[in-house]
Parts: sequence; C-alpha cells; structure tokens
Amino acid sequence: MNNFDFYNPTKILFGKGRIADLNDQIPTDAKVLVLYGGGSAERTGVLAQVREALAGRTLIEFGGIEPNPRFATALKAVDLVAEKSITFLLAVGGGSVIDATKFIAAASKYDGDAWDILTSRGSVVTNALPFGTVLTLPATASEMNSGAVITNSEKGAKLPFGSPHCFPAFSMLDPEVTYTLPDRQIANGVADPFVHVIEQYLTYPVNAPIQDGFAETLMRTLIDLGPKALASPKDYDIRANLMWTATLALNGLIGAGVPQDWSSHMIGHEITALNDTDHARTLAVVLPSLMNDQRGPKRVKLLQYAANVWDIRDGSDDERIDAAIAATRRFFEELGIKTRLNDYDVDASGIDHIVGALKDHGMTALGEHGDITPDDARRILEAA
Amino acid sequence: MNNFDFYNPTKILFGKGRIADLNDQIPTDAKVLVLYGGGSAERTGVLAQVREALAGRTLIEFGGIEPNPRFATALKAVDLVAEKSITFLLAVGGGSVIDATKFIAAASKYDGDAWDILTSRGSVVTNALPFGTVLTLPATASEMNSGAVITNSEKGAKLPFGSPHCFPAFSMLDPEVTYTLPDRQIANGVADPFVHVIEQYLTYPVNAPIQDGFAETLMRTLIDLGPKALASPKDYDIRANLMWTATLALNGLIGAGVPQDWSSHMIGHEITALNDTDHARTLAVVLPSLMNDQRGPKRVKLLQYAANVWDIRDGSDDERIDAAIAATRRFFEELGIKTRLNDYDVDASGIDHIVGALKDHGMTALGEHGDITPDDARRILEAA
Repeated sequence: MNNFDFYNPTKILFGKGRIADLNDQIPTDAKVLVLYGGGSAERTGVLAQVREALAGRTLIEFGGIEPNPRFATALKAVDLVAEKSITFLLAVGGGSVIDATKFIAAASKYDGDAWDILTSRGSVVTNALPFGTVLTLPATASEMNSGAVITNSEKGAKLPFGSPHCFPAFSMLDPEVTYTLPDRQIANGVADPFVHVIEQYLTYPVNAPIQDGFAETLMRTLIDLGPKALASPKDYDIRANLMWTATLALNGLIGAGVPQDWSSHMIGHEITALNDTDHARTLAVVLPSLMNDQRGPKRVKLLQYAANVWDIRDGSDDERIDAAIAATRRFFEELGIKTRLNDYDVDASGIDHIVGALKDHGMTALGEHGDITPDDARRILEAA
Repeated sequence: MNNFDFYNPTKILFGKGRIADLNDQIPTDAKVLVLYGGGSAERTGVLAQVREALAGRTLIEFGGIEPNPRFATALKAVDLVAEKSITFLLAVGGGSVIDATKFIAAASKYDGDAWDILTSRGSVVTNALPFGTVLTLPATASEMNSGAVITNSEKGAKLPFGSPHCFPAFSMLDPEVTYTLPDRQIANGVADPFVHVIEQYLTYPVNAPIQDGFAETLMRTLIDLGPKALASPKDYDIRANLMWTATLALNGLIGAGVPQDWSSHMIGHEITALNDTDHARTLAVVLPSLMNDQRGPKRVKLLQYAANVWDIRDGSDDERIDAAIAATRRFFEELGIKTRLNDYDVDASGIDHIVGALKDHGMTALGEHGDITPDDARRILEAA
C-alpha cells in the first residue's frame, strides 16, 4: 500500500426527512445565500422544504447555475456575496450546483483574479466561506469531497480545482428527493460513480485488498441497482443505496493509498467543453475504449475486475478482459447511455479539437504511469 | 437502510516515516503533554521519533497509562494539564493510551466530578482539549473515533463513553512501528477489529449492500492476513493492511445506517473488570457462544456471513451456521487466542459476578433488538 493522507470532515445527514434538520446545522447568526440550478429544485418542492426548515431566517437566493457550471455565472454570485455580506452558502442541487458553490466559497475569500483558482488547480486557495449542501442529484460525490470542475465557455475550457478549505461543512442526503429525477439523470448518476470507482481501481496492484474490496463492492452495487432504479423509481432502498454509493465513490476513501488514473475524466471533460455532452456520457464513451487500449499496463487489475466485479472466470486472459470490457459497455448501454463517440456527433475534426485542448490544458501525461499522451488519447478516441 | 449521521473529522497520516511529519500537525504555540503507557514506546524508539519530530518545542511527558486504563491514573494527568497549562495532548500508544487521552481531554474541560463523564456515557461533555495520536498498536480504532473505555478498579467497573468533541485532530499510522509488537498483541489486534466488524454486521438485514460488502472485505482481510502477520512480522504490506483494517473496523463507516449489537463487548468488559483478561480475548470467548445462542434472531446474517466471509455454501441452514461458528472459533484459536471461559480461570462464581455487574451497570437490554438480558448472558457464558 502507498503512503497517504485521508481527511474528510464533512458531516453526512442521511435518510428520510433529514432536510427538516437543516436549521441545527447552520450557525444561528449566519447570513445565508441559497444557491440552486435551473428550476427543478423549485418544481420538486426541495427548495420549499429548505425554506420551511429555515423559516424565520433571512435567506437570499441565487438560481440559474447551469449543468457544467459557468465561470461567469459563479462570478455573479461572488459579487452578491460581497454586496449582501453573506457568511454561509447553502447549495441545493447536484454536482454542478455544489461545484459552483465551492468555487464561489473560495473566490469570495480570494483577493486576486478568480481565474487563478482554476489555473492553479486550487493551490492559491487559503480560505473559503463555510457552506453546506442539500443533495438532489447523486452522482459526482461533490457533497463529500473538496473538488470541483468549472467551465469557462469563452475559453472553451473545463477545469478542475480542489482545496482542503472546500469541504462542505455538512451534506443532507435524503434519497426521497431523487424519486422525481428523469431517467437520464438517474442513468448518469449510476455511470458517473462507476467511472469514479474505476479511475481509483483500474491501475496496477499495490497490495491493497481493503481499497480493492470496497471498490468492488461499490461497482457490484451500481451494476445490481442501476437498472432497478430505472425500473422502480420509488423504491426507497434502491435510491438510498445508490445515493450512498455515489458519495463513497469519490470521498477520498477508496483512493487512499492506491494509484489513480483520471484520464477518462480529463479526456471526457474536453468532449463536454466541445459540445456540452453530459459528463457521465463522455465517460461511458472514453472508458471502454481506454480499457481496451491500455490492456497492457492495466492487465492484472483488468483480470481482477473481470473476476470480482463481473464473475468472469473462464477463457484466456485476453478473452476474460474482452468479456469484461463488453460487459462494461453493455452496462452503460442498458442504462440508456450510448458508448460510441459518433453517437454524440463528434467527428474527426472534433477529435482534433479535443486532442488540441488536452495539449493546451497541460493534460500531456495522463494515466497512473503518466504516460498517456494526447496522441494516445487520439487513438483511444478514434477507436471509440 | 436506516437513517444515519456520519461525521469523522480525524485526519489520517498513513505510511512509512510519517511520524517525521508530526510538527506540521500541532499548532506552533501549543503547550504539549505527551502521554504513553508502560515503557514500550520508549523501548521501541517511537518516543524518540516523536521527540525528534518535535525538537525545539517544550514537551511535558506523562507515562504509565495501564492497559485497560484506570480512572485514577487519568485524573493525575488531568491535574498535570491544569498545573502546566497544557493546550494540546499527544497520545503515543495503542487503544488504552488513546482512550485515556480522550478522557483526559474531556475531563480537563469539565467543571463537575469527572466520574459524571462515564456515568453519563459522555453526554455531559461539551468541550475537550484538542489532541492527536501516534498509534503503536492497531486494534481498537480509537485513533479514528470518538469513543473510549475507562476502568475504575475500586468500583470494579469498565465503562464506555463517547463525544463528538473527542475525535483526534490527527492520527499518525506508521505500520513499521508494529514490527516489534509481541505475538500476543498482534493476535489481539486481529481479533478485536474482527469482533468490531461483527458487532456492526451480524444482526438482521436492512438492505445495506455497501455496509455489508465493506464489512465482509474487512473480515476476509483479517482472516487472510492475521496468521500471516504472526508468521512474517516484518512484512510491510501485511502490517499496513492490518493497521488500516483495524481503523476502518470502528470509525463509524460500516456501522452507519445498519443495526448494531455490542453485547459481546459489554459482556466482555465485565470479564476484564473481573480479572483483567485482555479485551480481545474476552471477545473471542463470548462471540462464538453468542452466535450459537442467537442463531434464531441472527439467522439471515449468519447465513450471509457463512457464504460471503467463509465461502461455506454446502449443507442445511443450521449446518452452514455451525460451520461458520466453528470456523470463527478456529480462526481465534489459530491466532493463539483461547475461546473457552475456563481457559481464563472464570468459574461459576465468576459468572455470577459478571451477570451481577451487567445488572449493576444497566446492561439489561443488549443486542440489536434490546432483548439480551443478564440471564441470557448467563446462558451464553455458561455455554462458553
């Protein structure tokens, strides 16, 4: 096992009716800015639950945060924080709203140009406003980690940052609020955590049976419950287990002490920056092709993945790897997620653009060995 | 899955050579009291590593904390904290030293009679001195939770308490410091976490595949690596995986959202209070007998345990349960831990004493259903 630091101070309040406990979690003297997205939080009644739980407090609201949240939108919220002397942020939404809130929390306490936060990957952040979250769309685990991704559409860039100052103070996870999500978002909320787990698991072995066993548990749970969640939208236990799986997929736990490979995410981000394809769908395109392309360096873990996640035990090594990749592709397709690049209208010139963007953004040494270059990404994308 | 809160702000610094990073973790203006046990921290050089990492600071030291740490000893440290205006505690040791440090941290900030902290199970604690730990003996997970157990030998009582104010700020986990541990303590450090996992797993199903899968991973790792750790004392990866398993066995994660049954611990504590038997050994005595006695209420999970932890899949339900209990007993015995009460010189009058003590300490409704009475404990102990 590799050396590691693990630190995650976010308090999770999980279960039915937990939004009612919101008042106890926010300092009584706080001036609160409630942030949300495009209107679903209003339509589904989650915002009404939040307002009721915080009745009697002065709340200021800021809606309209986009999926793949925009730098320019976040800056408007930063201005509002200053103007209204806000002391606490409350994100009500999914990963996009929470990611934007992290950026707003950091930028509100940053003296320089807020763009520095992204170009430095967060290293310039020394402080942030405290914030909590009410999660409405489980997928990204942003509710229990300190990372975020912000899109700058003018620059055609989608860039990640992270800081130990950007953990939510608390996150409310009520599985019932996910009953009304459209199938498309449920499917994304299964595929995205699945790839998060893979990026921390499918590298090379370092004798870490706990991290491997936890990762395999999360993947098996997603494979079992993903299709069932689409078939039975109001089954509490299915939604509860998916919600908790998505959080644990990227809260630092399974990645502690093991190598990681975030190349599917980095390549996928550039697809989203190109044409706004859903984040999870870009992963479903890149991952199977990348698994096939990297079957050499990832051989031992691909065989372990075949056996322990898919129960594939017959055939030669390459046959078992082929079967595991096919099962992965089928899993995405059965969730209604297409896995070929041309399903998303990306042609040869689109690939040129993506490869160029990887170079522009310094993504020239991806993978657990730092040896996946933009040219390798081109080959992976062409095969996809 | 049941509703739950999960909160664990302890920062873990894991791996080779991490004690050298100690200086960065303690506030520069802190006045530090270093707490340790009976001399092994000195003998093995861990205290020397701590002193070197904190060179130039004023350190005050307090040694002599017992296994099953004593109330009276802890109170002496509380006096020293006041006398020397200590602002930060550093526990260097195993569960006993860390448990004592938690109590000292809480008692140093408590105005009333410190005994209240134990009789209230910690509910009177509203504040505590900050503290960190350097773990030398992995077993109890005290390095990453907020609970502790203190023995009052005058009163013949061993009582637990817990408080959200009693999480370590950080814990240093260097597997290399465990190389010199005697076999007896390594064996205890496998058995104790194993039973911790069982107490959060072997109840009744609540549709929690993640918690179950994580628990099964931890148990399989202990079963695989426990005997190997005794055979190969300087294998880094074995020690590293055991150390991290012990921490994850009781840091709140696998118990979140599932029923728990701490009856083996509560009955075991009274055996230790009677004759100072090692904590882990009392568990190895009580657990197999309790599993057999409670095979009715625990039936479904016992069958899951047989299949997923021991790969026992043939035979009738009762035969598979019998085989799993026998495997559990054999696992303890192979670690060199006896599993019969008379191995520890407890006779009929000893059982009378234990049953009486359970009544005196209000342990009258144990188990996940609250229906294991002192009379049930008598039957379990007689069968043990």
